[in-house]
Amino acid sequence: MKPLLVGVVGCGYWGPILVRNFYENEAVELKYVCDLALDKLVKLHRRYPTIELTTQYKNLLSDPALDIIVIATPVHTHYELAKQALTANKHVLVEKPMCTTSKECRELIALAKAKGRILMVDHTFVYHGAVRRIKEEIERQELGELLYFDSVRINLGLFQSDINVVWDLAPHDLSIMDFLIGQTPQSVHATGTSHTDQKIEDIAYITLTFANNLIAHFHVSWLSPVKVRQILVGGTKKMIVYDDLQPMEKLRIYDKGITVEEPESDERRYQNLIQYRFGDMHAPVLDLNEALKIEVSHFVECVQTGRAPITDGEAGLRVVEILEAASASLATGQTQQMPCVGVFS
Amino acid sequence: MKPLLVGVVGCGYWGPILVRNFYENEAVELKYVCDLALDKLVKLHRRYPTIELTTQYKNLLSDPALDIIVIATPVHTHYELAKQALTANKHVLVEKPMCTTSKECRELIALAKAKGRILMVDHTFVYHGAVRRIKEEIERQELGELLYFDSVRINLGLFQSDINVVWDLAPHDLSIMDFLIGQTPQSVHATGTSHTDQKIEDIAYITLTFANNLIAHFHVSWLSPVKVRQILVGGTKKMIVYDDLQPMEKLRIYDKGITVEEPESDERRYQNLIQYRFGDMHAPVLDLNEALKIEVSHFVECVQTGRAPITDGEAGLRVVEILEAASASLATGQTQQMPCVGVFS
Amino acid sequence: MKPLLVGVVGCGYWGPILVRNFYENEAVELKYVCDLALDKLVKLHRRYPTIELTTQYKNLLSDPALDIIVIATPVHTHYELAKQALTANKHVLVEKPMCTTSKECRELIALAKAKGRILMVDHTFVYHGAVRRIKEEIERQELGELLYFDSVRINLGLFQSDINVVWDLAPHDLSIMDFLIGQTPQSVHATGTSHTDQKIEDIAYITLTFANNLIAHFHVSWLSPVKVRQILVGGTKKMIVYDDLQPMEKLRIYDKGITVEEPESDERRYQNLIQYRFGDMHAPVLDLNEALKIEVSHFVECVQTGRAPITDGEAGLRVVEILEAASASLATGQTQQMPCVGVFS
Amino acid sequence: MKPLLVGVVGCGYWGPILVRNFYENEAVELKYVCDLALDKLVKLHRRYPTIELTTQYKNLLSDPALDIIVIATPVHTHYELAKQALTANKHVLVEKPMCTTSKECRELIALAKAKGRILMVDHTFVYHGAVRRIKEEIERQELGELLYFDSVRINLGLFQSDINVVWDLAPHDLSIMDFLIGQTPQSVHATGTSHTDQKIEDIAYITLTFANNLIAHFHVSWLSPVKVRQILVGGTKKMIVYDDLQPMEKLRIYDKGITVEEPESDERRYQNLIQYRFGDMHAPVLDLNEALKIEVSHFVECVQTGRAPITDGEAGLRVVEILEAASASLATGQTQQMPCVGVFS
Repeated sequence: MKPLLVGVVGCGYWGPILVRNFYENEAVELKYVCDLALDKLVKLHRRYPTIELTTQYKNLLSDPALDIIVIATPVHTHYELAKQALTANKHVLVEKPMCTTSKECRELIALAKAKGRILMVDHTFVYHGAVRRIKEEIERQELGELLYFDSVRINLGLFQSDINVVWDLAPHDLSIMDFLIGQTPQSVHATGTSHTDQKIEDIAYITLTFANNLIAHFHVSWLSPVKVRQILVGGTKKMIVYDDLQPMEKLRIYDKGITVEEPESDERRYQNLIQYRFGDMHAPVLDLNEALKIEVSHFVECVQTGRAPITDGEAGLRVVEILEAASASLATGQTQQMPCVGVFS
Repeated sequence: MKPLLVGVVGCGYWGPILVRNFYENEAVELKYVCDLALDKLVKLHRRYPTIELTTQYKNLLSDPALDIIVIATPVHTHYELAKQALTANKHVLVEKPMCTTSKECRELIALAKAKGRILMVDHTFVYHGAVRRIKEEIERQELGELLYFDSVRINLGLFQSDINVVWDLAPHDLSIMDFLIGQTPQSVHATGTSHTDQKIEDIAYITLTFANNLIAHFHVSWLSPVKVRQILVGGTKKMIVYDDLQPMEKLRIYDKGITVEEPESDERRYQNLIQYRFGDMHAPVLDLNEALKIEVSHFVECVQTGRAPITDGEAGLRVVEILEAASASLATGQTQQMPCVGVFS
Repeated sequence: MKPLLVGVVGCGYWGPILVRNFYENEAVELKYVCDLALDKLVKLHRRYPTIELTTQYKNLLSDPALDIIVIATPVHTHYELAKQALTANKHVLVEKPMCTTSKECRELIALAKAKGRILMVDHTFVYHGAVRRIKEEIERQELGELLYFDSVRINLGLFQSDINVVWDLAPHDLSIMDFLIGQTPQSVHATGTSHTDQKIEDIAYITLTFANNLIAHFHVSWLSPVKVRQILVGGTKKMIVYDDLQPMEKLRIYDKGITVEEPESDERRYQNLIQYRFGDMHAPVLDLNEALKIEVSHFVECVQTGRAPITDGEAGLRVVEILEAASASLATGQTQQMPCVGVFS
Repeated sequence: MKPLLVGVVGCGYWGPILVRNFYENEAVELKYVCDLALDKLVKLHRRYPTIELTTQYKNLLSDPALDIIVIATPVHTHYELAKQALTANKHVLVEKPMCTTSKECRELIALAKAKGRILMVDHTFVYHGAVRRIKEEIERQELGELLYFDSVRINLGLFQSDINVVWDLAPHDLSIMDFLIGQTPQSVHATGTSHTDQKIEDIAYITLTFANNLIAHFHVSWLSPVKVRQILVGGTKKMIVYDDLQPMEKLRIYDKGITVEEPESDERRYQNLIQYRFGDMHAPVLDLNEALKIEVSHFVECVQTGRAPITDGEAGLRVVEILEAASASLATGQTQQMPCVGVFS
């Protein structure tokens, strides 16, 4: 099969990692890398002397042979660049968060549909061996009824100039949650603070509520002295700890849970109604392939076959809707009720 | 000096630990232990055959020689038992949380004052070597301006029948925060959920805001497969991680921080205004004496000298006020503005 | 059943822990505690006001009602005190190491047999939930053929005045190994050093060899800045890590191993003959009862029934034989061949 | 300055990492990569399309413009390849262990001297930020008198077909020790076992002794279910733990130590003569540059200036002498006395 021709736009932190993964994928040929900053292109040239480098995005758009455009630029440019790419009949993989508003997300989804192009969002963690394994456990009903999802992603990180810590870090965990839970939240509440100009939050806490008392919480921060990347997923039958910083045993599955019994009478003491189980812990061997490598293969396969990607535009939209609600909650102090439109139904 | 005579009421989980500490303090003589459950007394008798055991609280009240009553009963009984003890001219050490309402706390404070008795709340962690060391760092201005306080106290814990996870676990961390930060919060917001009868929350998240963009957050849960007891305190100059489950090196002080510069012009890029410092980590040797042993000595000394305890009734009140606000927030979904009465001023 | 009467001699570090466990065992009555140091007895009295305290060991020997003597004195006194106790028809539980020479051990074994008394050695770790679980795995053939046993027990510890670090720390691990492996070593080699007067080693390394290329190694030190108590047990099918300092998950069982194939021809490359398996890790729930509590119950049951204890005099002897050989190796620099008398055969 | 021309021979595990580092060093130009296996060269070509690939080592030798040959082939070929390279007037960086015998090492050292060429051994860890920091602490007398060096390097590793675990893994730690301690050992003793054909040890323990009761011990294994890379360095004043698997805080410096006092009289108890200090722990920020990058720069600078490298042929020889002695000890069971020729004197 003739390799698909790919252009990557944006050579900041993540761009070169995308470049490496597309370069190493044998079903595609990485033809262009584009960035406004010439020094970044020069640096890349030493590593990849055969790739065509350009500061002109239009060169990619106007090349009829180019099949795919990968967008790894700042968030506020995603919408415009993706729209141009889709309009030029390119398949698009766009960095997360997909756009700055859900309205823009919906426009891109509609445009991709109209053009018959694949539109995929780079929710990398969804393709991580640990996350896929949790999904399997949930689908096999191993966890029982889900009780909570709790995520911490904190670091002494680089402040972003254009987005706050919610838009910078939470998309990772929201996309994992969206994939694992497969439900839309009923409400979103966020608290946080900024220590600079009062406008760009550097610490934030987000609570989502779902049907059946399921709760999700996200702690994101640029101001922690220690790096933490941990997710807890609790069910009635089993509970999982996913610690992404562990070199081995990133996933620990605890055979622990609770059983809630119906009270027989008013007199019976409450605590007797909760039965705890304390069982073994199990750390399964995980697929250690780089998540992005798997994602790139999946994307290429979707382009080749026309199948919808796992992290399609709809997934990107759902994450942006939560980010929008979190922003509204931070601004107003009010809990945001989520639209009743069940995107999963 | 003649030893002070002490009676302990309540032999549940914490009572026997108080009994041991008062038994081993040489300035007091543990005369009574009281509980309604005879089997708990019998169990205690084997260990402490010389202590007088009783199921009658009034025996303690009516003994004119008894100096001190220590109350380790369920929360909803604290107010009544403490009121009777103070009325009978006993000094009182009461378990946390102090009472079920701030109104009750205020009544006890007034009564103790009227009677000239010491009223102290058992905020044990305030006397822990790690917490005292953090306080020293703050007082010596080592941390710079405080940016945040973040606490996680989660476990697969025993559900309480009378109080939710906020009232059960958060008093530990609220009392630590109250001691370390020394400010009253401006607002309290809480989210949470119950997986049983919808009324008793088993997972909760509380956000407090303070002046100068200082934020505090508390995660408490009875439903975690792993036990975590960790506090982060971040300042502009240094940041501290206090992990109470580490056998050694519970406290790690990071010479990390940020400097926020004033922008010189609108054009200058935002991120250049934040300067990060990444320095060494330092784990000081801590006083490893049992916190409760130190607290009991402090309490005894306050009784002997008439000095106000560090964790006096006011400290107990401040914690209960936050718990009340958190409960109101959980019930209404609304952020609670805290009373402007500056208790520290 | 009438409770067995017990006397404990020796109130140093371990004595009071034995006292507590015998005090709490309901099948016995702790009648005496004996020590030459009056201050230690006084300290104990406050905790246990009903126990008879004495500095005269002969009082225990001459009390015809006394059934059991528990010896927790310095090692060099074990032989004499145990001999007197057995001669006086008492059952004996003696601290480890059992004696300072294997000759003394053999004498005590013979004496206990002649007197029809139980002689048990306090190899506490053999009764630990983690060690018993490893034993079960081995007995169920879960590990396959044993390949190695590796132990590290290091700390910044208190120097002993009468014994070196081998006699102080290695008995713990040698008794665990003896219990788990159930074979006598073929050879013993030890290296080590002393940083004080050249005579009392503070760091030592011991290697034991067994049939079938099984190897055991022990690292003991009083000079480590960090405390480590870790044992690795490797088999062809599974491998176990036992980290005694973990609060939970002390035992991790790895479904990892190797298969050694027979070479088909000389030409075939060596490395192809080794097949590795990298499987899941499993951390079983362990019996968290205090090992000494279980041991005391076992001892009492042996006294009541006449059954031989798991850690009988022979087990104590086997450990002392290895300690003797290690000492000889340290002194001569030579590997010591172990006596051919197969105690397990 | 005209860049130095470099050829790398050997594209196994380590070769491509050397290739990357020389490729990225701006003072050199990587002209050749050589390997007998064409498939390895093809794989490399995709990444580095501009480098000349060859299966003919003689092409490198016969190119008069080539300045440097880097040898990353199996150990038994090092001597012959390095000899040819030096004879052809090339500077040489050779993988560790330097050769299979000390005799070969000495020949290469003499040849390099005769030819006036730089001969350096790739003792990579010597250039690691953590190791250099320990060296600084030792040189600043922060540790006091050195008491011990203890190293553990274990893993479920790939069996080597040509060398045992001692020659495979111990060179890392022996080169670190050689650099840090700067003394030649007085004796070498090794124990170990093979679980395959009895000839290639897969687990080994090595003890070295030095003057002044300094002891060093090395545990190497291909059969551990868990990966450990830890070094302890103990001095009378401070003690260091270097855990290479920690993402941060690889080095922990403990303000712990002992003081040995002279006994005043025979009667005074031994233990009083040892004074322990338990102080703070300090984890310094380390240079996180890749060790090999620093090493390559150092090598290039030595070639440019004619200065002797830190890890010159003599350092390589010292490590091989210990490996030879360890092999002799494994074969004979005897402790090997080291040659009295003081290489550091």
